Amino acid sequence: MEEFSKIRFESDYQEGCHPRVLERICNSNLEQTSGYGVDYHCENAANMIRNLIEKPDAQIFFLTGGTQANAAVIKHLLKPYEGVICASSGHINVHESGAIEATGHKVIALENSNGLLKPELLRNYLENFYSDPTFDHMVQPGLVYISNPSECGTVYSKKMLQDFRIICDKYNLKLFLDGARLGVALTSSENDLSARDIANFCDVFYFGGTKIGALFGEAVVFSNPKLAENFRFLMKQQGALLAKGRLLGVQFESLFENGRENLYYEIALRENAQALKIKRAFQEKGINLLYDSYTNQQFPILTQSQYDKLSRKFVFELWQRLDNGNLAARFCTSWATSDNNIKYLINAIKEL
Amino acid sequence: MEEFSKIRFESDYQEGCHPRVLERICNSNLEQTSGYGVDYHCENAANMIRNLIEKPDAQIFFLTGGTQANAAVIKHLLKPYEGVICASSGHINVHESGAIEATGHKVIALENSNGLLKPELLRNYLENFYSDPTFDHMVQPGLVYISNPSECGTVYSKKMLQDFRIICDKYNLKLFLDGARLGVALTSSENDLSARDIANFCDVFYFGGTKIGALFGEAVVFSNPKLAENFRFLMKQQGALLAKGRLLGVQFESLFENGRENLYYEIALRENAQALKIKRAFQEKGINLLYDSYTNQQFPILTQSQYDKLSRKFVFELWQRLDNGNLAARFCTSWATSDNNIKYLINAIKEL
Amino acid sequence: MEEFSKIRFESDYQEGCHPRVLERICNSNLEQTSGYGVDYHCENAANMIRNLIEKPDAQIFFLTGGTQANAAVIKHLLKPYEGVICASSGHINVHESGAIEATGHKVIALENSNGLLKPELLRNYLENFYSDPTFDHMVQPGLVYISNPSECGTVYSKKMLQDFRIICDKYNLKLFLDGARLGVALTSSENDLSARDIANFCDVFYFGGTKIGALFGEAVVFSNPKLAENFRFLMKQQGALLAKGRLLGVQFESLFENGRENLYYEIALRENAQALKIKRAFQEKGINLLYDSYTNQQFPILTQSQYDKLSRKFVFELWQRLDNGNLAARFCTSWATSDNNIKYLINAIKEL
Amino acid sequence: MEEFSKIRFESDYQEGCHPRVLERICNSNLEQTSGYGVDYHCENAANMIRNLIEKPDAQIFFLTGGTQANAAVIKHLLKPYEGVICASSGHINVHESGAIEATGHKVIALENSNGLLKPELLRNYLENFYSDPTFDHMVQPGLVYISNPSECGTVYSKKMLQDFRIICDKYNLKLFLDGARLGVALTSSENDLSARDIANFCDVFYFGGTKIGALFGEAVVFSNPKLAENFRFLMKQQGALLAKGRLLGVQFESLFENGRENLYYEIALRENAQALKIKRAFQEKGINLLYDSYTNQQFPILTQSQYDKLSRKFVFELWQRLDNGNLAARFCTSWATSDNNIKYLINAIKEL
Repeated sequence: MEEFSKIRFESDYQEGCHPRVLERICNSNLEQTSGYGVDYHCENAANMIRNLIEKPDAQIFFLTGGTQANAAVIKHLLKPYEGVICASSGHINVHESGAIEATGHKVIALENSNGLLKPELLRNYLENFYSDPTFDHMVQPGLVYISNPSECGTVYSKKMLQDFRIICDKYNLKLFLDGARLGVALTSSENDLSARDIANFCDVFYFGGTKIGALFGEAVVFSNPKLAENFRFLMKQQGALLAKGRLLGVQFESLFENGRENLYYEIALRENAQALKIKRAFQEKGINLLYDSYTNQQFPILTQSQYDKLSRKFVFELWQRLDNGNLAARFCTSWATSDNNIKYLINAIKEL
Repeated sequence: MEEFSKIRFESDYQEGCHPRVLERICNSNLEQTSGYGVDYHCENAANMIRNLIEKPDAQIFFLTGGTQANAAVIKHLLKPYEGVICASSGHINVHESGAIEATGHKVIALENSNGLLKPELLRNYLENFYSDPTFDHMVQPGLVYISNPSECGTVYSKKMLQDFRIICDKYNLKLFLDGARLGVALTSSENDLSARDIANFCDVFYFGGTKIGALFGEAVVFSNPKLAENFRFLMKQQGALLAKGRLLGVQFESLFENGRENLYYEIALRENAQALKIKRAFQEKGINLLYDSYTNQQFPILTQSQYDKLSRKFVFELWQRLDNGNLAARFCTSWATSDNNIKYLINAIKEL
Repeated sequence: MEEFSKIRFESDYQEGCHPRVLERICNSNLEQTSGYGVDYHCENAANMIRNLIEKPDAQIFFLTGGTQANAAVIKHLLKPYEGVICASSGHINVHESGAIEATGHKVIALENSNGLLKPELLRNYLENFYSDPTFDHMVQPGLVYISNPSECGTVYSKKMLQDFRIICDKYNLKLFLDGARLGVALTSSENDLSARDIANFCDVFYFGGTKIGALFGEAVVFSNPKLAENFRFLMKQQGALLAKGRLLGVQFESLFENGRENLYYEIALRENAQALKIKRAFQEKGINLLYDSYTNQQFPILTQSQYDKLSRKFVFELWQRLDNGNLAARFCTSWATSDNNIKYLINAIKEL
Repeated sequence: MEEFSKIRFESDYQEGCHPRVLERICNSNLEQTSGYGVDYHCENAANMIRNLIEKPDAQIFFLTGGTQANAAVIKHLLKPYEGVICASSGHINVHESGAIEATGHKVIALENSNGLLKPELLRNYLENFYSDPTFDHMVQPGLVYISNPSECGTVYSKKMLQDFRIICDKYNLKLFLDGARLGVALTSSENDLSARDIANFCDVFYFGGTKIGALFGEAVVFSNPKLAENFRFLMKQQGALLAKGRLLGVQFESLFENGRENLYYEIALRENAQALKIKRAFQEKGINLLYDSYTNQQFPILTQSQYDKLSRKFVFELWQRLDNGNLAARFCTSWATSDNNIKYLINAIKEL
């Protein structure tokens, strides 16, 4: 069971929500509103996001979690005989218990580069696919799925998204960006993309709230409003329409008011900053990292002994057993990661 | 859009949660716990429920909503060629946008009696089914689904559940009870069932939180723990595993502490009491009700003119257009329905 | 097990195929052709059908069976949140083991009138549906499915198909006609529809071969070629693309050469004629029929004693147990039903 | 369109069926039998197979094609949250248009070695899977799928099947062998497995008829009869229950009468022998083969010029474009491949 004496860096969903989000939930508790997300809080939050991405026609829906959002969007966008292309490390390919296949669609996994799908690899795949004389017995590509940041903490560049867009237009594919941690990508030191860029390049994407300050909630944005037609029917069918939907609106109002000076970015910036302190501590100790992440997940490569020592005081995730017996671990920061906890961890790293 | 000047009796999910639930969410906000429902709050809440139903081995899972719970449980319990039997008025047959069929299973709808499935009708169906020489080209019955209270506010008796159990045992069917509003059934004046009875008669059922004081959440109980095997895998696949799962545990702790003196029953009792005041007001005005409900939903039969008059001050649901031009409406009470709002409504009824 | 001493009227698929079909299979046996239905026999047979229905652009696909055809077409035409409307007696609702639901779609069953869906009932359903304020939580109607002849042997009139078309256009629905026995409908004495009418009124329909002289095979016709886009991908996915696809082409060449003087109609006419002899024999004996069928299925209402007597010499299907203890039986004729067997049956009926 | 002047080596389903199979279809054409595979021909054919594999309790079902058989068996054997493991080159992973995913299940593709799944790779995968702390968010392995011969013409050894069995028993997995071309594996010079071995090692497998002398048909064998429970219901649901099912029985009677001296092996032996003549011709010309196949598919590596020259007279399949610009082609033999056609091809190869 749980170990209460330890400090947790195991994931970015171990605490509740940012106090300003909680305050708004409390303040609105007695209001009477319509159910199922057609209330003024949801409309208000949607408008905040429309302003941020400068897409007044974007259609926005609030769902409670990432797997739910991924499955609903992918099912909505694909025809029965189409599949979704992603990096082999993509969350939909690895950690969603087959949620996409459960909707009837193949996940077509291409090799990943530190968690990223390389546009040239995608182009290559598509060229081979359509020159294969048996392509009509194969799952047809319908959609490209990318995560930004990737599951390895790495981020996509503007150039890569431009390339994806060109490829998708050429091959009549849709582009879907999983933004479960989008805030930490957009506020990372390596990032050259704006929220507006994301909206321009992608057909659909989402701003994840669960990992950036909300109790739960993902704001799914259809940049192309035509693609959103009847998405609410599908949400209901997938069990993804929250009865007290205004809870999602209220939380996203907290996160997205005040334009670019929003709480969402503020939290994300801080998550990155705390994570980079951890990264530096490992680097200063001479401990390498599996990926060069500038976002809120860090992946130090530890010897068994280092791993065990840190495990005595901290909870973190075993990411990968390496061939040489070393262990890649994952440390995450969240909106709640305190300076004190960071200090304890850094001290422990120093003492390794 | 929404009409803020009106008082809402449209559904039982128009406000947030009971203050004691909210308080507990706030108090636990900074705690660090494991994700995905394997935290001590969930374990604690599960134990409270196990005690209440006197089933120490029951397996309990917390999901966010009713459609999600229904689809996950039904998919889990059925083989691919099996279907689920329910009353034609059953929520899964009418108001879940095909969520059950989306998992591949037919909903076999039998006639309803004021929202209830009659055991004799079920028995009849099964006798006919198995004496039909073409039954092997038909969907095999695998599961019986009932809602208590029904979608019409009516409740099942102990005798009816006993009969269902006997029939299900005879025909090797499972029995699943949708308890989205289970509290108001168990505390209704017409009820002769205990929570323990429910657990004894049903293979799986749930205590719905969304409509009885929680922000969201349904506690799915597998009375027979063997049937629960690997249900968590399915929850994840269905997008029904909340990342910050402890939110569900925390809410159900609030609702189910103190045994039978729990907040869940307290709220439910009050919902029923407020609803019966509305019922009486209609009856005293000589307005009939579509169903004889003693729970938190009431269905007065209004003339168009009465309907319009009430609509000026109140929001409520149009339930059914009757052949004579009258309109059956639905009025719901919730944990938050104030004495004042009831008074306003009763006065308006008197003035019709 | 099987009873070889008895004469069978149990179904219309108890013998092999018409000798002219078999001859063509034998004659083409050594030919080398492409697989999967892109051979010249299939193209040739498709052209014969295009000529018959006077639709040069129709897209035609050959599948092996009716359930396969129904599931593939319905899955192809519906969006995930849509369902298919049919008469409660419709084959997809009763006798396909949930094949449609297995593709994720609800079968919305409306009351049947002797196996037929009445246009006014459909209109009524749709009016109610769209005036229901909760329609957005319900399965959206996407497609109307009718069988001609119906499962009860009855046929649709031109007026009814016109009405369906008007309704479908108004509500943006597609119309799909299951023609597993289409030949016997089109050649029935009650019929006022041509194959061209069927193609004009319906978006998709099929000429069933299995029950009208072929070893197996259904020719699915998309009158509207746009709807056919990528249907082959779906056929492959559904396991409905026969490797030696030319077998289907060869059989439909046999059945559809010579325009309206085709073997398909010739066989169908004879099936009807033989069935009507049976019908008359029952009527002359004073035995009523459950439906007034003029096609190859007849449904006499027998006492238990009459049923038992006939069962000693003949195999036929128990269709329905009536409340008064009588039994409705089904007798089918096929391309192979011999005059001798008809004579034996008629004699046995006379002796009842 | 088709090129009639060329000789076809494109696949093993370009002609009809073996004359002895056709003769039996013709001879039985007028018989009246039950539909849907419960006739005496099917029972008789099943018994022939039971005798051959020495499993009197085996449950045997006849389906029309391989994709259909694969999807039905896999859907039947897996729980909703389970996936099927196979070699990346496996037919279900590449050439079935997502038929498996359409039933809701992930295909977990592991690296292939000339088309084969290596037992050590499987063991490795499973060890890693169960030592991954996040395995409960991943698709659970439920079944191992292998094709014998593989899609590359290579065959499994007895030792490999033994190893698979041990691994499957250890990890509680089922083993399913796709035998679309099983005859050519069992009669190949490299084979050390008997049909009985196959039945002993695998839970389910099939003898494919389509590619070995039948018009169509796959005989699915459940060595473990318990696993077969209710499989017929699933067949019907999948559209895989042929109405005139006796056609399958009749064909398999032709193929499997006379024990080990059966026509199935006779045809397969000849297919291999003809294919090896082609192989030798390429080798003698100094042309390498992509895989070292001893079965009825051969994969020569041709220069573009060689490819074009052969294409003028023969139809064959482009298998793979190699990095150096060369082209791997596929040549197949069938029951009908004549000595003359082989001679023409060999001459053409010599002239390259």
